[in-house]
Amino acid sequence: MAKVQVAQISVPEGWIDFGIGQPHVDILPLDQLTRAATHRLQQGDRNILQYGMQQGNGNFRGSLSQFLSTEYGAPVDPDHLFITAGISQALDQICALHTRPGDTVFVEEPSYFLALRIFADHGLKVISTPIDENGLIIEALEEKLVKHKPVFIYTIPSFHNPAGVTLSANRREKLVSLGEKHDFLIVADEVYQMLAYTSTPPLPMTYFDTSERVLSLGSFSKILAPGLRLGWMQAKPSLLEPFIVCGYLDSGGGLNPFVSSIVNSMIELGLQKDYLNFLRKTYRDRMVALNKALRQHIPVLRFTDPDGGYFIWSYLPEGTDTEALLAEAKKRQVGFQPGIKFSSAKGFCNYLRFCFAFYGEEDLMEGVERLSRIIR
Amino acid sequence: MAKVQVAQISVPEGWIDFGIGQPHVDILPLDQLTRAATHRLQQGDRNILQYGMQQGNGNFRGSLSQFLSTEYGAPVDPDHLFITAGISQALDQICALHTRPGDTVFVEEPSYFLALRIFADHGLKVISTPIDENGLIIEALEEKLVKHKPVFIYTIPSFHNPAGVTLSANRREKLVSLGEKHDFLIVADEVYQMLAYTSTPPLPMTYFDTSERVLSLGSFSKILAPGLRLGWMQAKPSLLEPFIVCGYLDSGGGLNPFVSSIVNSMIELGLQKDYLNFLRKTYRDRMVALNKALRQHIPVLRFTDPDGGYFIWSYLPEGTDTEALLAEAKKRQVGFQPGIKFSSAKGFCNYLRFCFAFYGEEDLMEGVERLSRIIR
Repeated sequence: MAKVQVAQISVPEGWIDFGIGQPHVDILPLDQLTRAATHRLQQGDRNILQYGMQQGNGNFRGSLSQFLSTEYGAPVDPDHLFITAGISQALDQICALHTRPGDTVFVEEPSYFLALRIFADHGLKVISTPIDENGLIIEALEEKLVKHKPVFIYTIPSFHNPAGVTLSANRREKLVSLGEKHDFLIVADEVYQMLAYTSTPPLPMTYFDTSERVLSLGSFSKILAPGLRLGWMQAKPSLLEPFIVCGYLDSGGGLNPFVSSIVNSMIELGLQKDYLNFLRKTYRDRMVALNKALRQHIPVLRFTDPDGGYFIWSYLPEGTDTEALLAEAKKRQVGFQPGIKFSSAKGFCNYLRFCFAFYGEEDLMEGVERLSRIIR
Repeated sequence: MAKVQVAQISVPEGWIDFGIGQPHVDILPLDQLTRAATHRLQQGDRNILQYGMQQGNGNFRGSLSQFLSTEYGAPVDPDHLFITAGISQALDQICALHTRPGDTVFVEEPSYFLALRIFADHGLKVISTPIDENGLIIEALEEKLVKHKPVFIYTIPSFHNPAGVTLSANRREKLVSLGEKHDFLIVADEVYQMLAYTSTPPLPMTYFDTSERVLSLGSFSKILAPGLRLGWMQAKPSLLEPFIVCGYLDSGGGLNPFVSSIVNSMIELGLQKDYLNFLRKTYRDRMVALNKALRQHIPVLRFTDPDGGYFIWSYLPEGTDTEALLAEAKKRQVGFQPGIKFSSAKGFCNYLRFCFAFYGEEDLMEGVERLSRIIR
């Protein structure tokens, strides 16, 4: 049979591409999901095949709330959870229900480049506002708010993609105050929240919500498996209401009820917790290894140590063009993401993003070795 | 443990609600899906857990094309298939990518009421155009096109919801010609296409496409299980392109790759074909039973026999208010959908929709019996 493409990205044999921001297929938990599926399917409950409840299956929201409560060390109310088909789906739906073409939204500079594509599809005007080592710079944001009125700000508060930084608790409070003062929503992409290796981030953004304006988005893509297309939104019930009653959900029912039921078993059997712990250990080791290799072999490269997530965001002396560098790198079968990709203002030309989640330590070191021959 | 709601609709004990337009949970194929899941998960392919290819897993599109080719009796090219998360998701995405608020779309009068909700969420102006026993009335559509310029027309060509009628081949050709002349897309909701009991409908709308403007939407919700959230779009590749490259798909990857892989096994093992044949026999028997019971016990009710699908669309003498009748019916623990729900022009006040897919023959007869006491 001819070989056909089945996954989003296929890496050529022999390449090491630090640009890939996803888990490697080799560590995806097929055995655990097989156990979970068997556990769920053998219970004889045909309801898992029926149109789901719009907000998400009540049993699953119960299990998820318990799991999250333990991981966060803070209570999660099942009624504050809405089951999504992943963060991309949630962002798309937020745009559909809260914005109209021509509306303004704020993003961080830099930001997750594929979220910018979703906003573009909805015809939104995107204004970027800078971050530093503690996340969004509040004063800079205030200045932008003098001129612009955003519907929402899209932020990645914990272990930022690409910058690796975490928004401090103090700034989280100030961000919510600004949201209140200028009446905008805060859409927090918290996909890396639980991938903390050397320090714990503040609680998800919704815990700082004093005025019903924060949507915290979580996902099983980075803590279980992307192919499940399953995530959640945690927010005050008044904020979930428009999603629960929208036409799309009224017609199709809940988003991914069948998959929810299998992941419910992953949680009930303790497999999700174990796998998350395995990931934390694996990714921490990889982060440390990449960090060390970069410092040792490419000392000209500067970066701040991340405490979690997937990425090391680094820079070379000003004037370096990392897009041109990438072309050179490709000749040696090594890749990364050039900084400009994460900018809505064509900035970060001397930056590059490394992902340490995809490869094992040996490959990470081999990749750095290859890069060190072109970056001196 | 407290009982929590898990499915979209819960029917009170003892009720017979002809208004429910979904399969009954009792006939959903849990055993078959368990076999399919086991078959797939035991193959050891972790790619089913990875971000999927934007258009949908190539192997799955191959299997689906073979299955559809056999059922349709016409070739289906895997490259003309795009995997969706069900028709509701597809409609939502079509609106997001092809329309802007204030744009006009055409729907049939009557039409599927929950599609109307999706269009409303996207701020679309909806114009309705009438149907008769052969589907859309082409002359009436032409008249509407003098005054309005729709982005698309939403049509349910085979075994229409609620009307049960099927658009003739001749009219399908004329509809495409009109689309060409007035430059609008044709969005065909073909969820009942394969549920043919007493006569075969013409081929799906995309087979009549001469000018790259027809999107044929299919779904596993009515032929397998709604909770899977899996469907497809069949169209010329140029029409699929905007969906494949959109930001939502670029970010999240294919829609439901994990579930696709399980349904792939349903098809490969022949279980999908067997189950579809079981459904056809079951629903045909139910359709015949309801038809007979209605003619016998409520002769004042008039309707045309459907040849497939889920529904009998019937009417009472003009002046009857079926919403008021429903209030009466509820006192006897029996329900139906009043016609006005399917109208974007507040029409069909004397119509009612019966679904014969949800209940077994005994319940169908008991329901008719209860209704006959209030409709004379």
